[in-house]
Amino acid sequence: MDSIATGDRAAATALYHAVRGATEAVAARLSAEDQQIQSMADASPTKWHLAHVTWFFETFLLKPGLAGYAEYHPRYSYLFNSYYESVGDRHARPARGMLSRPPLADIMGYRAHVDDAMTRLLAEATEGEWAEIVPLFTLGLHHEQQHQELALTDIKHAFSVNPLYPAYLDEAPPEGPAGAPALRWCGVEGGVQEIGHDGNGFGFDNEFPHHRTWLEDAEIASRPVTNAEYLDFMADGGYATVAHWLSDGWAAVREQDWEAPYYWRRQEDGSWAEFTLRGLRPVDMAAPVSHLSFYEAAAYAAWAGARLPTEAEWELAARAARVDEDDANTLASGRLHPAAAANGGDGPAQLLGDVWEWTQSAYAPYPGFRPAAGAVGEYNGKFMANQMTLRGSSCVTPAGHARITYRNFFYPDQRWQFTGLRLARDA
Amino acid sequence: MDSIATGDRAAATALYHAVRGATEAVAARLSAEDQQIQSMADASPTKWHLAHVTWFFETFLLKPGLAGYAEYHPRYSYLFNSYYESVGDRHARPARGMLSRPPLADIMGYRAHVDDAMTRLLAEATEGEWAEIVPLFTLGLHHEQQHQELALTDIKHAFSVNPLYPAYLDEAPPEGPAGAPALRWCGVEGGVQEIGHDGNGFGFDNEFPHHRTWLEDAEIASRPVTNAEYLDFMADGGYATVAHWLSDGWAAVREQDWEAPYYWRRQEDGSWAEFTLRGLRPVDMAAPVSHLSFYEAAAYAAWAGARLPTEAEWELAARAARVDEDDANTLASGRLHPAAAANGGDGPAQLLGDVWEWTQSAYAPYPGFRPAAGAVGEYNGKFMANQMTLRGSSCVTPAGHARITYRNFFYPDQRWQFTGLRLARDA
Amino acid sequence: MDSIATGDRAAATALYHAVRGATEAVAARLSAEDQQIQSMADASPTKWHLAHVTWFFETFLLKPGLAGYAEYHPRYSYLFNSYYESVGDRHARPARGMLSRPPLADIMGYRAHVDDAMTRLLAEATEGEWAEIVPLFTLGLHHEQQHQELALTDIKHAFSVNPLYPAYLDEAPPEGPAGAPALRWCGVEGGVQEIGHDGNGFGFDNEFPHHRTWLEDAEIASRPVTNAEYLDFMADGGYATVAHWLSDGWAAVREQDWEAPYYWRRQEDGSWAEFTLRGLRPVDMAAPVSHLSFYEAAAYAAWAGARLPTEAEWELAARAARVDEDDANTLASGRLHPAAAANGGDGPAQLLGDVWEWTQSAYAPYPGFRPAAGAVGEYNGKFMANQMTLRGSSCVTPAGHARITYRNFFYPDQRWQFTGLRLARDA
Amino acid sequence: MDSIATGDRAAATALYHAVRGATEAVAARLSAEDQQIQSMADASPTKWHLAHVTWFFETFLLKPGLAGYAEYHPRYSYLFNSYYESVGDRHARPARGMLSRPPLADIMGYRAHVDDAMTRLLAEATEGEWAEIVPLFTLGLHHEQQHQELALTDIKHAFSVNPLYPAYLDEAPPEGPAGAPALRWCGVEGGVQEIGHDGNGFGFDNEFPHHRTWLEDAEIASRPVTNAEYLDFMADGGYATVAHWLSDGWAAVREQDWEAPYYWRRQEDGSWAEFTLRGLRPVDMAAPVSHLSFYEAAAYAAWAGARLPTEAEWELAARAARVDEDDANTLASGRLHPAAAANGGDGPAQLLGDVWEWTQSAYAPYPGFRPAAGAVGEYNGKFMANQMTLRGSSCVTPAGHARITYRNFFYPDQRWQFTGLRLARDA
Repeated sequence: MDSIATGDRAAATALYHAVRGATEAVAARLSAEDQQIQSMADASPTKWHLAHVTWFFETFLLKPGLAGYAEYHPRYSYLFNSYYESVGDRHARPARGMLSRPPLADIMGYRAHVDDAMTRLLAEATEGEWAEIVPLFTLGLHHEQQHQELALTDIKHAFSVNPLYPAYLDEAPPEGPAGAPALRWCGVEGGVQEIGHDGNGFGFDNEFPHHRTWLEDAEIASRPVTNAEYLDFMADGGYATVAHWLSDGWAAVREQDWEAPYYWRRQEDGSWAEFTLRGLRPVDMAAPVSHLSFYEAAAYAAWAGARLPTEAEWELAARAARVDEDDANTLASGRLHPAAAANGGDGPAQLLGDVWEWTQSAYAPYPGFRPAAGAVGEYNGKFMANQMTLRGSSCVTPAGHARITYRNFFYPDQRWQFTGLRLARDA
Repeated sequence: MDSIATGDRAAATALYHAVRGATEAVAARLSAEDQQIQSMADASPTKWHLAHVTWFFETFLLKPGLAGYAEYHPRYSYLFNSYYESVGDRHARPARGMLSRPPLADIMGYRAHVDDAMTRLLAEATEGEWAEIVPLFTLGLHHEQQHQELALTDIKHAFSVNPLYPAYLDEAPPEGPAGAPALRWCGVEGGVQEIGHDGNGFGFDNEFPHHRTWLEDAEIASRPVTNAEYLDFMADGGYATVAHWLSDGWAAVREQDWEAPYYWRRQEDGSWAEFTLRGLRPVDMAAPVSHLSFYEAAAYAAWAGARLPTEAEWELAARAARVDEDDANTLASGRLHPAAAANGGDGPAQLLGDVWEWTQSAYAPYPGFRPAAGAVGEYNGKFMANQMTLRGSSCVTPAGHARITYRNFFYPDQRWQFTGLRLARDA
Repeated sequence: MDSIATGDRAAATALYHAVRGATEAVAARLSAEDQQIQSMADASPTKWHLAHVTWFFETFLLKPGLAGYAEYHPRYSYLFNSYYESVGDRHARPARGMLSRPPLADIMGYRAHVDDAMTRLLAEATEGEWAEIVPLFTLGLHHEQQHQELALTDIKHAFSVNPLYPAYLDEAPPEGPAGAPALRWCGVEGGVQEIGHDGNGFGFDNEFPHHRTWLEDAEIASRPVTNAEYLDFMADGGYATVAHWLSDGWAAVREQDWEAPYYWRRQEDGSWAEFTLRGLRPVDMAAPVSHLSFYEAAAYAAWAGARLPTEAEWELAARAARVDEDDANTLASGRLHPAAAANGGDGPAQLLGDVWEWTQSAYAPYPGFRPAAGAVGEYNGKFMANQMTLRGSSCVTPAGHARITYRNFFYPDQRWQFTGLRLARDA
Repeated sequence: MDSIATGDRAAATALYHAVRGATEAVAARLSAEDQQIQSMADASPTKWHLAHVTWFFETFLLKPGLAGYAEYHPRYSYLFNSYYESVGDRHARPARGMLSRPPLADIMGYRAHVDDAMTRLLAEATEGEWAEIVPLFTLGLHHEQQHQELALTDIKHAFSVNPLYPAYLDEAPPEGPAGAPALRWCGVEGGVQEIGHDGNGFGFDNEFPHHRTWLEDAEIASRPVTNAEYLDFMADGGYATVAHWLSDGWAAVREQDWEAPYYWRRQEDGSWAEFTLRGLRPVDMAAPVSHLSFYEAAAYAAWAGARLPTEAEWELAARAARVDEDDANTLASGRLHPAAAANGGDGPAQLLGDVWEWTQSAYAPYPGFRPAAGAVGEYNGKFMANQMTLRGSSCVTPAGHARITYRNFFYPDQRWQFTGLRLARDA
């Protein structure tokens, strides 16, 4: 998206429409009824995602920046604000599924209205205005991409609680490799190192500042843990052996009756199936294990005699490996599920795509972190407690969205994202 | 519906289609998105109602009674069973709103499939089969009418939690009387009296047996309590004066912050508006107060120096008053909201229509009550604890559904039905 | 206690001290630490009971009636008011176990202080004052007796949650009959009958007024259901067969994992033991089953092809049987546990003592019921919703406290009282 | 406690009895009733603390190490195990307050029994056994000191929920300084630095290993934030201004109605009092603010334009300041409440004593951390999620227990410990 900064208005406009169109493509496979469901407080209805990302452009760009802009509907700001306390009151999160009105058709009208205005804004802004617009405009595009991923994981959850197990995609997935490559250990060089975003291209506020850190020499696995490996942990009594677990993790195991990854369902013949965006399917044993909580990832690592990597280890390993998003299994691949990958090189692979990887690092501000001024300052900083950082990206992350400095974060008991793990160990 | 018992197949078939069509007419004003919402565990989505009443005919009539009947879908029995434990497992009640699939279109297909089969069953049954069919067939029709009322109260609730306050009916309501008639006290004669269904025409199991009871002479009000009167109670500190309240009622007031009837909303100018099926409207002070819990009804009565009637008092008063459903404000009137009524005669009026009236009688079996054999035995009897009986009918009760022996019942803290009260006192 | 009404001051004073002493005798077997425990919100610490019954005399008799009475402590009214909303704020019920201060010694000082003042009041009251005092004084004594029973059931609960299973009484219980007499059915004559307190002697407000009622001829069992009989129900899958249960009862079975009476504990050898006030002991199969909820009582009756009696049936049967409290297993017997009784006569036996008997009657006001004026009007009436009436008395009811018109009441899921059942059926 | 390692048996024995006696001195001011109370799940009764620390020596030293040791009671292991899952089942934490039995007298008997046996073990161990014993023996002493602090904070909580506001100490506190010294900023030198325990003397497992880390130059405040300063934050709308708060912190403010530090109580004249171990007293404005959650500490720092220090910054500042525990306001001072301190030198002061200081560091394993083998491996490591690290010590930390490498940890919403904060900022 770096064309934006150069001031190429036509490119920026095309990019805007491409991102907006990608969101609509995600939604297009779903009926209005499907887009209505909110199956838990952490998730949102698809149509709410469609409206909320639109509200972002309306609120942060059009209202302050486009002369004569007419708000589409006076109550939409209340309905589609997600959490920006500074922007005003908002509809209670767990009640998003109650909104049969506005109907999907009106939300598509809202999108068209905002798209027209945005097109005008991008065309008509003076040079001075353009400079002001660019940061928020770019943020809006990346924000919308985040919601593309969330919309897919949320609908997966919604379909998973329906006894009919509906499929988002009807076709069977493409064949993948029958087996995963053997796990190799790859070195990570210690010392005073630098991590964080270097300022070239877009980054979220939480990736800044670029800063020095110290780490000891370490090793990181060449690929994520597979379903077959995780099944070994299960077969070895992993969920019943308290010694592997953090205290809060053990409490979660007991209270929530965890005995397998989130979407696994034991079949009558004793085998395991997995709910996927293509419906209920046999677990692909060669693929990376997914939909694990941090607690499960940490317990697996303890059982395996290893540990999770730190953020710094992961980022330095990824920088050394010169990862290329084009090789990754992301949303662009259309598979929408993790798969085993060939493992050609010497370094770690599959760092992008397939599954987000839990690290052992609590989500915290980098030294010198400053939130942005104004309401968008609420973007990331206020979540820096009680959550753990994940690195990489997943099989439903939009192309162009991933970076090796990207810091994703979830609570340690959350499981509905495509979350897996990669082992690390001291050198 | 008494033509059914006579064996008039054509009349029975016509009645079946009329009742089924009435349900669809209730749903027809709603989009598929609207029909999806479940706004609390006590309520169900409209499309679930459409399917559940259909499941009743399929389960209790077609599967056992129609040779060669092909089940529409193997999972629908699981999805659309409401509470019949004997019939098998069922989808969790609070998760009914999660069912974007089957889509509304499939549920309409289900209805058509069952309607075809029912038409065939009604035509082809032998005389012996007919005799067996009639009780369950009649029950199925009354059951479907109950769900017409529930569908309307449930969608009212669903729309009430939407900040846009959608209207089920767009047009303003017809003008009603500007004032309520003065309250008169009407005598109820005591002694050994008989109440309960006499066996002429349909009655639910809980209305049987017809039996003797003793009551003292009493008096009952000529009409329900109005909004104006209830506002007096509020203005007199009714919600803040513990002495008026049952202990559990006072706990509900405190925990749920009750300060007015359920759908009342205080306006910025200090006046009260009320959410109705025609959207948010000023409270009609002459109309019967509605959406009260039993606790509020009992507290009002205590404040007014009166009490709620017993079931027996209400039924005997209604029998003496020779109520005529045709005069009542029911679903047939199309108003869908309580309204003041002229009060011409000497006895009590407005006993049917407008609002269900809380009695002081706990919902309990009549002496000699026996539940029906088989799964339909679960129809009413198992709910005979912790609930209070209501009498009459409401502004959304279908025509032909009400009877003076009808025993409706809800938990004493429930408020989303059209529930009001009529005062009584010892003679 | 009827000497009081005659104005015999010495007898009244002696009675006062006898009742007060009986409360202290109940507490005397417990350490200060034991008297501190509140093991659930429904229960209270023993020392709280000691103080609360004292507060009753201080608040309703001494403060208004004894010139120059000096309140013992300014905060005790706040701490030891149970639920009289009209009397002022009060300490939260579930936090009663947090009161290490005042220590037990201070509470005993409070009792002595109030006893002195009460002695003076009883001696010094003028005739006119005496007439005013008598109703509240008598109520205070019966109130204190109620708390003697509650103190014993509450400490039983507190000890039951201690893995050491402490015994309130160390000695083994006296031998009881090895078997229960065969169950006989005894007639109850229907027609217009009169029930309720006739005004001779003390009665709580809820036993009034004496009034007419109608009942059909019926039959009532000669004795309560025994543990052996209840075990048959369990062995026949009683807790797993939904058809026996009320809907709310079935929900309680599932949510609370009920599989036996409250204090039964399955032993390693498969037999059942029962926690008693003498510690954990083998279940006495001949004794009446106890610590059942209303739901369990009703399910047992349904399984047995019978039903629970109504209040009127129970009271009329008891009147006909001319029950004699002296024959009953009450607190006076010192057994503190239900036991089988010989069954000599023709009519029903064991109506008093052993176990409170659930009826099928919801706890409701008698026709014409009026609560007392002032704060004591909160005594019973405000609880007349959601509870079921029990009749008789139990093995821990103080002598002189029981009456056949007595109406005890608990919520249908409560199990910590000595609650059992007696079957009834239509004639 | 370093004499232990040298093998001086007499010194070790004396130390053992000194630590054990200090625990009993803490309890001695409380009645058996006081020692019974558990006022929330996070807290434990005093008598449970007395028993639990004893269980530690019995379980980890006497049973495995003393030939012929006779367990005091077969159920105590179940009752007094705190959380060591590997050691077996245990009594549910929130039910600790239900244990009136064993009475306090028995627990004191348990202590004497174990003390005798420990004395014997310390005297009779062979040299080889001694070497094995020392680590667990030392751990047991530090463990017991931790529970001295917890017992005091737990009884403070228990007394705080009693409307009588009992005082643990009756005497007024000694006079303290009238004002706090002005806040100065003290430099912390960045670069590659070493933190963690260096192996000289005792340290908990979580203080190891000594390791390198990187930090930027920073500044740290010369003293903790005072009550006067915190009141400025409150007066400036601190609790009502969302921008200062972490998202989870804001949720806690709203759900728990926070408006002041935990033990502050607004008086009728508008001033603030504070519940202390000497009862309810006016807030000492010069003293460090205490009983703050991490969220409040972080919000204050944000409001003040500063931040919380990292663990490394705090430890390096403390090392440079050459802190001396003898100058600190700890348990030894007998004040049992934070107080202002003179601030003589150039560097930061009051690092030990008064209040634990929240850092911005999530509680996590140091690089290379390895839990101990066996059950004591559960000591610290399994809590390394969702908690924040605190540094320093408090006014109720036993003398000899504090170290600048000490890592205390609590959940970010917990407030019942003596927890405050010190500001830091980037240089």
